[in-house]
Amino acid sequence: MSTQEKAADAREVVATLGRASKRAARSLASAPSAKKNLALSTLAALLTEEREAIFAANRLDLERARAEGLSEAFLDRLAITDKVLERMAEGVREIEALPDPVGEIEALRPRPTGISVGRMRVPLGVIAMIFESRPNVTIDASALAIKSGNAIILRGGHEALESNKKLAELVSRALEAAGLPGAGVQVVAVGDRTIVGELIRARKFVDVLIPRGGKGLISRLMAEATVPMIKHLDGICHTYVDAAADIEMAVRVTDNAKTQRYSPCNATETLLVHRDAAEAFLPKIGRIFADKGVEMRADPAAFAILSAAELPVVAAEDTDWDTEYNAPVISIAVVDSLDAAIDFIAEHGSQHTDAIITNDWTAANRFLREVDSSSVMVNASTRFADGFEYGLGAEIGISTDKLHVRGPVGLEGLTNLKYVVLGHGEGRA
Amino acid sequence: MSTQEKAADAREVVATLGRASKRAARSLASAPSAKKNLALSTLAALLTEEREAIFAANRLDLERARAEGLSEAFLDRLAITDKVLERMAEGVREIEALPDPVGEIEALRPRPTGISVGRMRVPLGVIAMIFESRPNVTIDASALAIKSGNAIILRGGHEALESNKKLAELVSRALEAAGLPGAGVQVVAVGDRTIVGELIRARKFVDVLIPRGGKGLISRLMAEATVPMIKHLDGICHTYVDAAADIEMAVRVTDNAKTQRYSPCNATETLLVHRDAAEAFLPKIGRIFADKGVEMRADPAAFAILSAAELPVVAAEDTDWDTEYNAPVISIAVVDSLDAAIDFIAEHGSQHTDAIITNDWTAANRFLREVDSSSVMVNASTRFADGFEYGLGAEIGISTDKLHVRGPVGLEGLTNLKYVVLGHGEGRA
Repeated sequence: MSTQEKAADAREVVATLGRASKRAARSLASAPSAKKNLALSTLAALLTEEREAIFAANRLDLERARAEGLSEAFLDRLAITDKVLERMAEGVREIEALPDPVGEIEALRPRPTGISVGRMRVPLGVIAMIFESRPNVTIDASALAIKSGNAIILRGGHEALESNKKLAELVSRALEAAGLPGAGVQVVAVGDRTIVGELIRARKFVDVLIPRGGKGLISRLMAEATVPMIKHLDGICHTYVDAAADIEMAVRVTDNAKTQRYSPCNATETLLVHRDAAEAFLPKIGRIFADKGVEMRADPAAFAILSAAELPVVAAEDTDWDTEYNAPVISIAVVDSLDAAIDFIAEHGSQHTDAIITNDWTAANRFLREVDSSSVMVNASTRFADGFEYGLGAEIGISTDKLHVRGPVGLEGLTNLKYVVLGHGEGRA
Repeated sequence: MSTQEKAADAREVVATLGRASKRAARSLASAPSAKKNLALSTLAALLTEEREAIFAANRLDLERARAEGLSEAFLDRLAITDKVLERMAEGVREIEALPDPVGEIEALRPRPTGISVGRMRVPLGVIAMIFESRPNVTIDASALAIKSGNAIILRGGHEALESNKKLAELVSRALEAAGLPGAGVQVVAVGDRTIVGELIRARKFVDVLIPRGGKGLISRLMAEATVPMIKHLDGICHTYVDAAADIEMAVRVTDNAKTQRYSPCNATETLLVHRDAAEAFLPKIGRIFADKGVEMRADPAAFAILSAAELPVVAAEDTDWDTEYNAPVISIAVVDSLDAAIDFIAEHGSQHTDAIITNDWTAANRFLREVDSSSVMVNASTRFADGFEYGLGAEIGISTDKLHVRGPVGLEGLTNLKYVVLGHGEGRA
């Protein structure tokens, strides 16, 4: 096929998917909670009943991935085990148990003209989700979409195609069993990248794009997509230990923020320490980091203190302050004041999650107000930035955008408010 | 200058504006209401005190526009009269009187881990507004930006450049008089289009783009901008007269929705009538439209009824159903059912504002739930879709987007919610 034929073909594939999704979205938008919940409980049951079929599809993906020489770590993420399946089903049941956000009408108030004006919470419409490897995203995202009354088009990594197709088929069956359109969930079943190029510009069919993947994927979509996105680009989270910090607490929280897990986007990557706390704090946290094998990359002031304490430390380079390691590495800088810490975060942060450790009331409140991140914290580990920890029940991702939704995106983030106006024959004067 | 030099130059202009705006935005974001209100009351006073200087700047624009042969209607919109100035100042005082949305923390709830989680309302950051002719937008938009704690970059039509520069200068003076950064409001003072091209892709400096203008402008920005937008593209509003409508009410409301003013985006462009109401309703509304000189473009069923009543009517073409007239023209179609009306709106509407006229409880509720527009109405004129009528106090525009904000955009639409987490030294388990 020529490039042009390929493009025309991709456009047709996306239009066909898009039209079916739009139809399904209208039906899902006005579906009562009972039907949506029935679809979810059916899905949870199917994940157990159909386990052999799921494993068989997953084996095809695993075999191909092995033949392609992909790493063991990759295969691990790709594999659907009994335990993975159980967790998927549990996740679906948890979403079933959440309150349905759709249809609620906020304060309906009479206006002087006689009309009453309020806002109704409604689904976004058609979601397109582009993600890499893990097939459990197919189930998590589908369940969140169904509960929030949205249709979803899923485009996972080609390595998980057979698994994703099988899982989405079960979701469609569950929808149909509840009297809802099976096309509420669709998988892009062809491998061509041209399709993605079309999908991310299909404003006619797709209301929102939710990418989940590495920075490469997100950056590419940001440059090329015309469909509005909910996304997160970087997770360069800071923990700032203030002059008025309780040193023992600062050590405990910073340790958790960095080492509880290294790969998540809400792990702390840069540690800022007020000059007055540095001598007392840095040797203590440095000892823990050294013991756990966390590489410390320090500015000159922090370097001097850590070296004097005979701890392993290297000099940070300029790029360290703008790097998301997702690894046992941390950059450390000493700052002269709260203002300097806030300025530093404004310059180098990614508006994801930043925390202050302090007992100073004013410093805590200024940090909360002035740091412009999707989550700002006082005396808590940045690792808490998570839909489940926040009580949203589940999340489809974390947004570092400034519009629509900031932070963990749960059911509410997949809806919006439209105005409802109730009159009695009024016209405008 | 070569094209390349021009582009480099534009990039530098935008970076300079952008850096100043970002600095100003941080200061405005944490400014107390009293300071912001002082800036607004000072601005309202300056609009009166400096009227001669404003008129002088406006005269330069008017003279150039006249020399360029622009129409009287255009000159009318461009002219700043005593009355226009008075309305501007009044608008600023009204915004001053509105409650400050910034800093409010929604329900802060304890979680099982010990942390408390809530959300704080915060400004978006830096707004870039691109608009055509009317210089009052400079004042309205600046006042809304200041009150909501945002910095704003204004790019008006080149025909109003001198007026806009003078007005923005007064806004900056008012900001400085209140101890706030004058760069909170900046005007793009150079005429080159290359600047706009840079501005709409300056994601590093600009958080949201709010265009206001014709469809040509919006479409171009949608194709080229990478900064997220709050916008409205079309205003193809429907009034649907249901089988169970009170015919007198239907006539009154439809008349208002179409003829109270022809040019606004919330005027009804397409009238849908249930078959069972058509015979009783169409001749009555048709008589009013004929008397007011509103051209009726009808589908065959409506055409037959209107012709039989000896009213002037033309046959609608396919394109009529997708046309925003902004003029004394209306398209009219007869539908067989509520479902057909909802389907019609889904196919041809612009998700702006649609109304049903009915006394049927179920029909009204289904319409409210199933029509996916930024405003849905029962027994009221579509002309009510307006920030002032809804009680927002003022609006910076109307959004037909699905994300962030739908319908009239007031102060709340210029803010968002970030998570705040208050702990006592907790780490994640």
